[in-house]
Amino acid sequence: MTASVAVAGASGYAGGEVLRLLLGHPGVEIGTLTAGSNAGERLGALQPHLLPLADRVLADTTVETLAGHDVVFLGLPHGQSASIAQALGDDTVVIDCGADFRLTDPGEWQAFYGGEHAGSWPYGLPELPGQRDLLRGARRIAVPGCYPTVSTLAIVPAVAAGLIEPDVTVVAASGTSGAGKAAKPHLLGSEVMGNASAYGVGGTHRHTPEIVQNLSGVAGGPVKVGFTPLLVPMSRGILATVQAPLLDGVTPEQVRVAYATAYDSEPFVHLLPEGQWPQTQSVLGSNAVQVQVAVDERVRRLVAVAVVDNLAKGTAGAAVQCMNLALGLDEATGLSTIGLAP
Amino acid sequence: MTASVAVAGASGYAGGEVLRLLLGHPGVEIGTLTAGSNAGERLGALQPHLLPLADRVLADTTVETLAGHDVVFLGLPHGQSASIAQALGDDTVVIDCGADFRLTDPGEWQAFYGGEHAGSWPYGLPELPGQRDLLRGARRIAVPGCYPTVSTLAIVPAVAAGLIEPDVTVVAASGTSGAGKAAKPHLLGSEVMGNASAYGVGGTHRHTPEIVQNLSGVAGGPVKVGFTPLLVPMSRGILATVQAPLLDGVTPEQVRVAYATAYDSEPFVHLLPEGQWPQTQSVLGSNAVQVQVAVDERVRRLVAVAVVDNLAKGTAGAAVQCMNLALGLDEATGLSTIGLAP
Amino acid sequence: MTASVAVAGASGYAGGEVLRLLLGHPGVEIGTLTAGSNAGERLGALQPHLLPLADRVLADTTVETLAGHDVVFLGLPHGQSASIAQALGDDTVVIDCGADFRLTDPGEWQAFYGGEHAGSWPYGLPELPGQRDLLRGARRIAVPGCYPTVSTLAIVPAVAAGLIEPDVTVVAASGTSGAGKAAKPHLLGSEVMGNASAYGVGGTHRHTPEIVQNLSGVAGGPVKVGFTPLLVPMSRGILATVQAPLLDGVTPEQVRVAYATAYDSEPFVHLLPEGQWPQTQSVLGSNAVQVQVAVDERVRRLVAVAVVDNLAKGTAGAAVQCMNLALGLDEATGLSTIGLAP
Amino acid sequence: MTASVAVAGASGYAGGEVLRLLLGHPGVEIGTLTAGSNAGERLGALQPHLLPLADRVLADTTVETLAGHDVVFLGLPHGQSASIAQALGDDTVVIDCGADFRLTDPGEWQAFYGGEHAGSWPYGLPELPGQRDLLRGARRIAVPGCYPTVSTLAIVPAVAAGLIEPDVTVVAASGTSGAGKAAKPHLLGSEVMGNASAYGVGGTHRHTPEIVQNLSGVAGGPVKVGFTPLLVPMSRGILATVQAPLLDGVTPEQVRVAYATAYDSEPFVHLLPEGQWPQTQSVLGSNAVQVQVAVDERVRRLVAVAVVDNLAKGTAGAAVQCMNLALGLDEATGLSTIGLAP
Repeated sequence: MTASVAVAGASGYAGGEVLRLLLGHPGVEIGTLTAGSNAGERLGALQPHLLPLADRVLADTTVETLAGHDVVFLGLPHGQSASIAQALGDDTVVIDCGADFRLTDPGEWQAFYGGEHAGSWPYGLPELPGQRDLLRGARRIAVPGCYPTVSTLAIVPAVAAGLIEPDVTVVAASGTSGAGKAAKPHLLGSEVMGNASAYGVGGTHRHTPEIVQNLSGVAGGPVKVGFTPLLVPMSRGILATVQAPLLDGVTPEQVRVAYATAYDSEPFVHLLPEGQWPQTQSVLGSNAVQVQVAVDERVRRLVAVAVVDNLAKGTAGAAVQCMNLALGLDEATGLSTIGLAP
Repeated sequence: MTASVAVAGASGYAGGEVLRLLLGHPGVEIGTLTAGSNAGERLGALQPHLLPLADRVLADTTVETLAGHDVVFLGLPHGQSASIAQALGDDTVVIDCGADFRLTDPGEWQAFYGGEHAGSWPYGLPELPGQRDLLRGARRIAVPGCYPTVSTLAIVPAVAAGLIEPDVTVVAASGTSGAGKAAKPHLLGSEVMGNASAYGVGGTHRHTPEIVQNLSGVAGGPVKVGFTPLLVPMSRGILATVQAPLLDGVTPEQVRVAYATAYDSEPFVHLLPEGQWPQTQSVLGSNAVQVQVAVDERVRRLVAVAVVDNLAKGTAGAAVQCMNLALGLDEATGLSTIGLAP
Repeated sequence: MTASVAVAGASGYAGGEVLRLLLGHPGVEIGTLTAGSNAGERLGALQPHLLPLADRVLADTTVETLAGHDVVFLGLPHGQSASIAQALGDDTVVIDCGADFRLTDPGEWQAFYGGEHAGSWPYGLPELPGQRDLLRGARRIAVPGCYPTVSTLAIVPAVAAGLIEPDVTVVAASGTSGAGKAAKPHLLGSEVMGNASAYGVGGTHRHTPEIVQNLSGVAGGPVKVGFTPLLVPMSRGILATVQAPLLDGVTPEQVRVAYATAYDSEPFVHLLPEGQWPQTQSVLGSNAVQVQVAVDERVRRLVAVAVVDNLAKGTAGAAVQCMNLALGLDEATGLSTIGLAP
Repeated sequence: MTASVAVAGASGYAGGEVLRLLLGHPGVEIGTLTAGSNAGERLGALQPHLLPLADRVLADTTVETLAGHDVVFLGLPHGQSASIAQALGDDTVVIDCGADFRLTDPGEWQAFYGGEHAGSWPYGLPELPGQRDLLRGARRIAVPGCYPTVSTLAIVPAVAAGLIEPDVTVVAASGTSGAGKAAKPHLLGSEVMGNASAYGVGGTHRHTPEIVQNLSGVAGGPVKVGFTPLLVPMSRGILATVQAPLLDGVTPEQVRVAYATAYDSEPFVHLLPEGQWPQTQSVLGSNAVQVQVAVDERVRRLVAVAVVDNLAKGTAGAAVQCMNLALGLDEATGLSTIGLAP
C-alpha cells in the first residue's frame, strides 16, 4: 500500500526537507505541493536540489488542494494550521511542523506566542518515555521544535532516572536554516558568515516553554529551564549543551548507565563512546541524534551535549518518523542515521 | 546476489564517501575496511557520520586483507594502486579513486606526476561518448579526477557537436575536501574560511592533461585547455566555468540543442531550464551534475557552467556508478540526484 | 585643516565601510550621516562595529542635510546621485560610490542599466595610466565598481605594454557583501554558506562595459571582455582570474617586467614574488591589491590573478583614496596595506 | 621616544596579530622577528597580509636574537618562555602571550598543564578591579587566555557587586584561530566548515582554572566555574554566555547599574544598550569587548553575553594594551574599538 502525501509550504526549508526525505521513502507517493506567495512557480526554481520534482508546479495552500491525501504535512507560518486541519477530516494524517499544537498550557502559549491557543496534539517525540505509543496510529501530530528536540534528548535520561536537580541550563548553537527562508537583513550571508551571536536571551525564546513541558512531564514535577540560543555560521545543525547540578551521591557510572539504558534500543539516538564528543557534521541530513555526557566533579554538574540536523531530526525527519508510526510502518522507513560529512 | 566489497583508505574522504554511498546500496555487503596510519582504530572515531559502521576496526592495507572480495575500492595515495591491483586477480572488480591509471600518455604522466607510468584502465566517465560500453563488465576502472569530471561534462557536448574552436578556458572553484584529509597548514579552517585563493595556475595542475585527454578524444584532434583552479570556503562542491570561442555561424539554438541532445537520456547530468544557473548546494551528497550554457554574443564565446559534489559524482559516486556498470546492475542503483540543501 | 565629511547611505555596506575608514583618517571630521528607510535610527543598532559612532542618529538623505560639508560620499541606489550632486555646489567634493557616473558611453549605460544616462565624472582608479592627475583637485569623482577594479588592475599592465591580444576572459569569485544589505532570499546565509554559484553569465553583468571601457581606453582600441562572476561563501573579498592570448614572441620575462614596472611605485598594488599566488584574506579590510601573473606556455596564454577587499579598495577604500587626491592630501592617508588574517 | 620591539613566534597567529597591531602603533619600531621551524623564511610567504613586513626574514628564537630590544613579545609553545625571559634582563619588558605565567597556584598548573610551574607574572587584564595599577611600569606581563578574558569580563561586575551565587556556568563558542596554526586533522577547513563541536567538556579545558582564579580573586572567596568550549565555523571571535543564580532580592536594575558602573570609564569594554545582544563580527580585529546582561526571572538567573576577537583583545590586543601600560603610554595607543564588518 502506498500512501498519498501532500506538502503545504513546499517552497520553505521544512517543506523542502520533508520532500527530500519522502523522495527516498518507499511507501509514499508525493501528491500536491502548495505554497503561499510562490504558488504557480516550478519547484525546480525554488528547490533546485530536488531534481526529480523540478517540474512540479506549486498550488495554493487551501483545504481543497490538500484534501484527498492520506497524509498532509504542514510547513506553515504560526496560526494557519488549525483551520486547515479541522477541514481535512479525521482519517487524514495531519503532521504539523509548526508550533500551533505543541504546547498543552494555554497560558504558556499566550505568554510566548500570543493570541488564542489552538489546542494540543500528540507530541511527535517518540523517544520521550511513553510517547511512542501515543503516536502509533495517531491522526494529528505536532512535530517538536528543533531546539526542544535536541535539548530534551540531551538531558531526559538524567531527568527520568532522577539524577539531577530540576534546574537545567541549556545553551544551544544553531545554524541559520532554523530561522527559515524569509529574507531578513540579520540573516544575510554577509551578516552570519564569520559571526556568532546570541538572541532570545533571558528565557524569552519561544522554545523555552516546550523544553520545560517535556522535562517537567518526565520528572513529574516542575523543572526550571534557562535557555540561551546562539546563531553560528552554518546552514544546518544544532549543538546543545545541557547542564544541571548532580544530586548528592550520584556517580558518573550511574549517569552513564542511565543514558545507555535510555538509548540502547532507540533507532536514532546514539550515545557515543566515552571521550568522543558530538559534532553537528556527523548528523547532517540524517535523522540521527548523537549524545555524550560527562560529570564535572569540581562543580558537581552533569554536562550533556547532543547534536541534530535541525531540518532533519529537528523538523522534517521527525515528521516522517511520526508519519511512519501513524501509518503503522517501521519507524525508520526512509530515514537514515548516516550523516553527510565532511 | 550480493557483492562483497572492500574499501582501502576507509579513513580518508574518498573512502568515507564510498562507504556512505555503499550503506545505501541494496546490492552490496561491506567487507574489509583498511587504512594506513589509522589501521587498528575504530571507524567511528574517524568517520563519526557513518554510524552503522562505527564499531568496525580498520585493517592494514595489504593484498591479504583486500583479497576475497568481489569488488575492491582503492582510495590510496598516488603510486600504491598498481601492485595491489596486480595481485588481486582478474575477476575482482578493482575501482581506483586515485590518479594512477587515468592517463593514457606516459609522457603526460611523467610531466605532471613524475615517476613511471603504471598504465591506463577504462576511464570511469560513462557520460563520455562511447565510454559506457567500455565500463560494462569491466574489471579495472580508473575513476576520473573531480575537476576533469565537471569540466569535461560542462563542455563536451559542444566539442562533440563541433561548435567551438579547440581552445578551452576552465576556471573552477572547489571546496576543500578535494585536497584530502592530510593536515596541511594552508588547509586549516582558519586559513580557508573567509578566503578565496588560486593555486596551480598557469597550466600546472595535475588535472590539466586529464581534461585535455577527454576533450581531445572526443574532438578527434588536439584541444587546448587552460585550467585554473580556485579554493573557496566550503567543504564540498565544485563549480566549473568553461568557455571557448564559438565557430562562425553557430547559433545559441544550436548550442542548446547540442546540450539537450547530449544529456536528455543521461541519468545524472541535468541541463537546467534556460536562465537558471547551477549552484553547488543543489548537488551536495548526490551524484547529479547540473549544467547550464549560454552564448556571450559580444565576444562570440560559449560559456558553460557545471556543478558536482567533488566527493560524490566527483569521486565516490562515480566509483559506485562504475561498480554498477561493472557488475551489470542498473547504473543508478544506490545513487541519488537529490542534493542536501540548504 | 580638517575637512568636514557627510555620508549618505550610512546604514549600508558601502557607507559603513567609508565610515570605518574615516574613523582612522586624521584629516576629517565626520558630519551628517543619512539613510533612507533607516533614517531616525541610532547607527549603533545598524552598524554595531562602529562603536565610536554608536550614538549618532541618521538623518534623511536630502540636499539640505548633506549641504555645508567639504566632502560628501554617496552610497545610494542607482539613479539618486545626479540630483543631489547638482544641488551641492561646485566646491563640494562629491564622491559617488554608485554606478551613475562611471560609464562614458550613453549607449552602454542604456544597454546595461536602462534609463537616461546622467553623464560621467572623473573615474576613481588612480592606478590607470594618466588617471591620477585627473583626480587631483577633482570635485566630482565616480568610484569604480568592485569587479572592474580588480579585473582591470590584474591585466592592465599587459594591455598597456601591448603583450596580449585584445580578447580578455575574466572569471571573478566574490563574497556576498558586494550584493549589498537589502534582504533577498538567495543571499540568505542558509543559501550562500556551503554554496558556490554563477550569475550574470554570458556578458550580462553590469560591470562588463566598465571593464571594457577601462581596458579599451588604455589599449587605444577595442578590447573584448568576457566576464563571469561567481558568488562564493565569504562576506568580503574578490579574486579575479584574468586571461588573454599572448602575442607571438612575447616571453614570460617581458610579462614580468611589464607588471613590475607598472606597479613598482604604486602605493596599494603589490606584485607578489614569483610563485606566490594571491588570496583574499591577505587584503581584508585593507586598500591593498595583491597581483600575480604567469604564462601558460602550453596554451600561450597570460594568466593573471588579483585580489581586493570589495568593500575597501573595491569601494570605500578607493573612495577615501580619491578624497585624498581631491583634497591634496597624501594619497595613502588613513588607508592601509595590511589585511586582517586569519 | 620609540620603543624597539621584538616578536618571538612571528609566524604564528598570535605573533602575526601582534605585528598587525604594532604596524599601526606610533610608538614602536619593529625589530627582530623570530620563529621555530620557519626560521630563515620570508615573512611575506607566511603572513602575506602583513605587506609592509613582507621582506623581513625570520631569525631563530634565541636569547641572542631577542636581546637588545625594549620590548619582547613571546608567542611560543608552553614551557619555552621561562628560560628566555630569565636571560633577557630585568629592564626589558617581556610580554608572554602563552600560558606559562598566568596561574598563581602551582597545583592548578600541575593539574591542567603538567610539569613544573614557572611562577606567575602580573596578569594582563587591566579591567580586573585593581589590576591596572599592577601593570603600569611592569617588566613582565602574562597575557590572559582568550576564553578567560571574555568570560571574566562578562561576569566580573556581578561578582564584584555581590549579586550572584559563586556558581558560574560558562559556555563559549570560539572560532578556530584560537587553536593555532599547527596543522591537525580536526582543524582542517573541511572538518570545521558547516560544523559545530564541543571539546574539553566536563571542566577539563586548561582555561578553566584561569577563570576560577580571576573570579575568586574578585569575590574574595571560591567561585565555582563550569566551563564548556565550543568550536564553531569562523576564523576569529569568541562569544561567551555566562550564567549564575541571582541572590535573593537582587533586581534587574541593580544588575544593570553594576555593569554600567564597572565599564563606564573603560576604554575597551562597552555595555550595549538594553535589548541589543553582542555579535562577534562587531569586534573583529578590534580591541573592543561588547557586553550585554539580562535577568531570566523564571529561573532567577543572570545571563551575560560578551564577545571579543580572540586574537585581538583575546591575545595580541591585550598584549599591546599591556605594553602601553608598561611603557607609560596612553593605554589605547595603536588600538581600536572599531570592528571589521560585515
